[in-house]
Amino acid sequence: MGEGGDGGEENMAAWLLGINNLKVLPYKLPPLGPNDVRLRMKAVGICGTDVHYLKTMRMTHYVVKEPMVIGHECAGVIEELGSEVKSLAVGDRVAVEPGMTCGRCKYCKAGRYNLCDDTKSLGLPPIHGSLANQLVHPADLCYKLPDNVNLEEGAMCEPLSVGVHACRRANINPETNVLIVGAGTIGLVTMFTARAFGSPRIVIADVDEQRLLIAKSLGADEFVKVSPSIEDLDEEVEQIKKAMGSDIDVTFDCAGFSKTMSTALNATRTGGKICLVGMGHNEMTIPLTSAVAAREVDIIGAFRYKETWPLCIELIRSGKIDVKPLITHRFGFSQKEVEEAFEVSARGGNAIKVMFNL
Amino acid sequence: MGEGGDGGEENMAAWLLGINNLKVLPYKLPPLGPNDVRLRMKAVGICGTDVHYLKTMRMTHYVVKEPMVIGHECAGVIEELGSEVKSLAVGDRVAVEPGMTCGRCKYCKAGRYNLCDDTKSLGLPPIHGSLANQLVHPADLCYKLPDNVNLEEGAMCEPLSVGVHACRRANINPETNVLIVGAGTIGLVTMFTARAFGSPRIVIADVDEQRLLIAKSLGADEFVKVSPSIEDLDEEVEQIKKAMGSDIDVTFDCAGFSKTMSTALNATRTGGKICLVGMGHNEMTIPLTSAVAAREVDIIGAFRYKETWPLCIELIRSGKIDVKPLITHRFGFSQKEVEEAFEVSARGGNAIKVMFNL
Amino acid sequence: MGEGGDGGEENMAAWLLGINNLKVLPYKLPPLGPNDVRLRMKAVGICGTDVHYLKTMRMTHYVVKEPMVIGHECAGVIEELGSEVKSLAVGDRVAVEPGMTCGRCKYCKAGRYNLCDDTKSLGLPPIHGSLANQLVHPADLCYKLPDNVNLEEGAMCEPLSVGVHACRRANINPETNVLIVGAGTIGLVTMFTARAFGSPRIVIADVDEQRLLIAKSLGADEFVKVSPSIEDLDEEVEQIKKAMGSDIDVTFDCAGFSKTMSTALNATRTGGKICLVGMGHNEMTIPLTSAVAAREVDIIGAFRYKETWPLCIELIRSGKIDVKPLITHRFGFSQKEVEEAFEVSARGGNAIKVMFNL
Amino acid sequence: MGEGGDGGEENMAAWLLGINNLKVLPYKLPPLGPNDVRLRMKAVGICGTDVHYLKTMRMTHYVVKEPMVIGHECAGVIEELGSEVKSLAVGDRVAVEPGMTCGRCKYCKAGRYNLCDDTKSLGLPPIHGSLANQLVHPADLCYKLPDNVNLEEGAMCEPLSVGVHACRRANINPETNVLIVGAGTIGLVTMFTARAFGSPRIVIADVDEQRLLIAKSLGADEFVKVSPSIEDLDEEVEQIKKAMGSDIDVTFDCAGFSKTMSTALNATRTGGKICLVGMGHNEMTIPLTSAVAAREVDIIGAFRYKETWPLCIELIRSGKIDVKPLITHRFGFSQKEVEEAFEVSARGGNAIKVMFNL
Repeated sequence: MGEGGDGGEENMAAWLLGINNLKVLPYKLPPLGPNDVRLRMKAVGICGTDVHYLKTMRMTHYVVKEPMVIGHECAGVIEELGSEVKSLAVGDRVAVEPGMTCGRCKYCKAGRYNLCDDTKSLGLPPIHGSLANQLVHPADLCYKLPDNVNLEEGAMCEPLSVGVHACRRANINPETNVLIVGAGTIGLVTMFTARAFGSPRIVIADVDEQRLLIAKSLGADEFVKVSPSIEDLDEEVEQIKKAMGSDIDVTFDCAGFSKTMSTALNATRTGGKICLVGMGHNEMTIPLTSAVAAREVDIIGAFRYKETWPLCIELIRSGKIDVKPLITHRFGFSQKEVEEAFEVSARGGNAIKVMFNL
Repeated sequence: MGEGGDGGEENMAAWLLGINNLKVLPYKLPPLGPNDVRLRMKAVGICGTDVHYLKTMRMTHYVVKEPMVIGHECAGVIEELGSEVKSLAVGDRVAVEPGMTCGRCKYCKAGRYNLCDDTKSLGLPPIHGSLANQLVHPADLCYKLPDNVNLEEGAMCEPLSVGVHACRRANINPETNVLIVGAGTIGLVTMFTARAFGSPRIVIADVDEQRLLIAKSLGADEFVKVSPSIEDLDEEVEQIKKAMGSDIDVTFDCAGFSKTMSTALNATRTGGKICLVGMGHNEMTIPLTSAVAAREVDIIGAFRYKETWPLCIELIRSGKIDVKPLITHRFGFSQKEVEEAFEVSARGGNAIKVMFNL
Repeated sequence: MGEGGDGGEENMAAWLLGINNLKVLPYKLPPLGPNDVRLRMKAVGICGTDVHYLKTMRMTHYVVKEPMVIGHECAGVIEELGSEVKSLAVGDRVAVEPGMTCGRCKYCKAGRYNLCDDTKSLGLPPIHGSLANQLVHPADLCYKLPDNVNLEEGAMCEPLSVGVHACRRANINPETNVLIVGAGTIGLVTMFTARAFGSPRIVIADVDEQRLLIAKSLGADEFVKVSPSIEDLDEEVEQIKKAMGSDIDVTFDCAGFSKTMSTALNATRTGGKICLVGMGHNEMTIPLTSAVAAREVDIIGAFRYKETWPLCIELIRSGKIDVKPLITHRFGFSQKEVEEAFEVSARGGNAIKVMFNL
Repeated sequence: MGEGGDGGEENMAAWLLGINNLKVLPYKLPPLGPNDVRLRMKAVGICGTDVHYLKTMRMTHYVVKEPMVIGHECAGVIEELGSEVKSLAVGDRVAVEPGMTCGRCKYCKAGRYNLCDDTKSLGLPPIHGSLANQLVHPADLCYKLPDNVNLEEGAMCEPLSVGVHACRRANINPETNVLIVGAGTIGLVTMFTARAFGSPRIVIADVDEQRLLIAKSLGADEFVKVSPSIEDLDEEVEQIKKAMGSDIDVTFDCAGFSKTMSTALNATRTGGKICLVGMGHNEMTIPLTSAVAAREVDIIGAFRYKETWPLCIELIRSGKIDVKPLITHRFGFSQKEVEEAFEVSARGGNAIKVMFNL
């Protein structure tokens, strides 16, 4: 990066310094490589994992050991191009794919780069994130937005990508009746995508009636309120089947608990699929054999995403998916607002997506 | 069937009359339909499910309510053709696919006839089986044997079909390193098939060292003796990985217990597959999420088989698979021998496949 | 069929007696089998192949040697059930799948029953067709219509099935930009289906501007008028690419000539697919290698259809596809009207689908 | 690369200077990047395309405009590691994948890097090749050879990769009867691979009886001598079908002419596949419709290869494929020998693969 390539101003970022300790402090950008761009961040969303890091400084085996800039759902405007970048121009509004993969391992070469062991991803320790005024990022991970897609919608491509990847892995199409278990953000983006992929009928189940009403208002055909207790399993499966009114071809477990997976196993039709997206618990006690071995219900995993941004942008551009109703709260980028935004996001309730406008 | 179409002799069959009560008694054949053939049975194997019915009169939700002829692994010689049968001739030696499916449901039409809800299968209550002197069966489920495949090998096409269907579902090919958990008959036919499908390296695990030594002598590259205790999981998984020496692409769980599936989940590489064939327990407690949701290890079910006989016969004909070592015991078809044969099969030990020569 | 099961009235049918010789004459129904139903025909469409038979008494290797009842695009009301039929009821309004396949060959068992060598299909010589007051047909090939789908729409499921089968084989989804070459009935139903399967952009090409304007009014994003001359190939391919504005992922050749297939080969992106549906000429002179061998453009065939009726009905029911604008002419079932209807259909021009209301 | 990193000696290479003008001259290596290795070349084979460049200075749209080092089928020993290379060690014997792809385009990200528009490949103008004493190449494109695979076999992984990629695209397995049209090097490596992938029966056709005898001696089940004339098509197709004795599931056209593709179209069974590998002519006159549109014979393209080296090495290591009989001539690396080697290769006749030992 040339001297003063960032206009000489100080780049501020939200640093995760410890448990419940997030501070807006200066962040010196890394140098601009030949295939990189420098972006002015405009919209950054808060993800559940960001909140989790703030509260615990860790997530599965990822541990925040050094101060780290948080954030990874983002979009911005290009301010500077690396010397080799030809596909983009200064002033382009772009959505950002956060994960940088090695390009050399067998997963990358086989087109499954979401499984690359050497992924470096924004806001995934120890890689700095994107809740900052500026970001340096590889150009091929920045996707130009059409005129009718705004920067907040650009930032929403990241959570939406989870739904797209799940629906691709489960091969959702106009013949697939879909059950979604879990009506949080992931459940909702999966519902949006399943609909955009042509699913004729979508039933959604959750323990929280408020979420179910939102899901219904956003497009679910039917919803079923379930309990956290395994005792109610059989009766709830009957309710769910009745709500579907025909075979359940694919179930997305967007929660990931013994109860939700048991529901999926018992509700999905012979020869159907379950796609596990949620990561509630690792260990589950579930009636596996009668579904998988005796009825060929396959269980498919969906981890992160790959090659999803162009499709997300197209789905938003064409109006097939409207992510705007998911953005329930907006904040600026002062220390006070950052703290408040994370509090709102952590509290849940009627907050779905909390967005920073920088 | 014309009068006396069976040569006027009395057809004898092994009737399951009650728990541990199996009697060789006359069995009047059903009429020969236009698309049927009448067979002289020559070789009938005993399956673990036959033993299970003899001991309990039931298997999952299948219950023997009326006296039923037992047996379904079989081959014979054609003695009479239905009026429309053109593909076979009297005197043809044929292997028999036992399952008769409806041909009209969505599974049958989609080429997944093994999932047909309306399957009628030899020796599956309430359908009479094939441990009898004669059998009337649809011609399209009788597959002519080449000269160098004998009738016992023909009967072995049924258990071998389970391995073929599992290897097809898991897409085994020359790039697939395979772990097999469970070295019983199903584990062994799956091992044979995985090798015939090109697998370069096969490791097999079991709690029984005797079985493992047999598996090794029949082609496994390495074996690992494991314990039934979940306590040993991590260490055993390390041993298994070391025995493989490279990524485990596909694991077949041919047992179907919490321990075996846990082994499969932890041992299989990121992006690999587990194929569940065994049906030990329905409910399992397993570390599902870290494998499926976080590493896209997919779990695929394999139930029965479909369109497997031509391939089984070809694999035996070409010598790619030798099923003869699996036949450890042979019996004739008297009342005494039938009882003895089932006792030997039930006892296990060094008995793998017990075969009747009728 | 019981005596008088047809109400004692005389069943009239349109008999193809010779070239340009079609007569409405009595037709004695075959007996009602246990798995059959007897239908009162209500809507029968004229297909291009029907016209072809009328004009030449043959189509490829199918020759009309004996007088044959014509017609195969149809829907009706059930009047009588065979003894084993449980899935339908008298009075049900149903769309009819015309092809009866053997259920026993390897194609049927593998779920590719459209390739069954032993297919017997309505109006395909020597099998009698459905342009008649009544029809006896297998129950599993009659699909109940929802209340909001009328019988003409039911009859349209047959041509629509061709588009559905083609789009399934070509795996059309929300990421597939589609070029359709040929804007006749097959081109239009393929366009409808590609849109219903989520295609974000569809360009259609034809030599007939009138047809193109219809295609545009029915949903094409852009159209390109092309010439029948191969001289214009390069320029037209440029126009088509420009009309698409991005990569052409899949091209449907719904015509089947050297010119149309050359267009497909040169226009389709590297790694894309061509689906050949049209059967204009058998022998073609085409630039195959530079597309297939050097750019992995695969050519996929689509013949007839399989398991398409439930999806066609769902697509019409949900409003994702509206087939009604394709029905341009309607006729009753007198001798005079039958002759007139076939004349209108043969003349082409503004006639797309000519429908009989019986 | 550090000064003197190449030992101070002068690196010699075979420079293509003009038509039939190939000179062994000094070649200054490019600098060693952090992810590169420097190799001592040990075995380099001559490919038909090398000969083509020597004779015409071009191949399709690739033109040799500047002096270029020739060669791309190669293996060597690692002499120096770039600073980031951890997967390899000095002294490792490695096979070299020649194509360097961009890693950023949609083809690379989707796992189809053989279709990358920005591929830079050894000996593909304007990129220098590998017929030289030393080579600098990306470490992730160098694959370590097991002890029992020699360097000539390492160099043979390149042509073998073409067969592997073709067999993967055509999904060859133990149920696939294969016809190969064209018994040149590509035909032979495809035959080897089809066998290694489990094909139970392989018939090969060519116009040259000598080649067919070689193919037979190397493993073809049967061969059919054909003529270049289209007049003989029908009779030859009958001969081929008879030689197969059952359905032809997949045909590889390893020649790429109207006659060979016509043979493929007429010989392949309904629902089968043709894989086009050869690039004889671009424009073909072929009976496309009756196979593709009326019998769903799909035509699949195979271009270059991707992720094939590990499998090639495993197939050679395990003895499933023996490439050594293909190496018919060997030469040293003097000016005289280089000229002679290319003459032998160009002459054809009994020369299959001509190999340099450097």
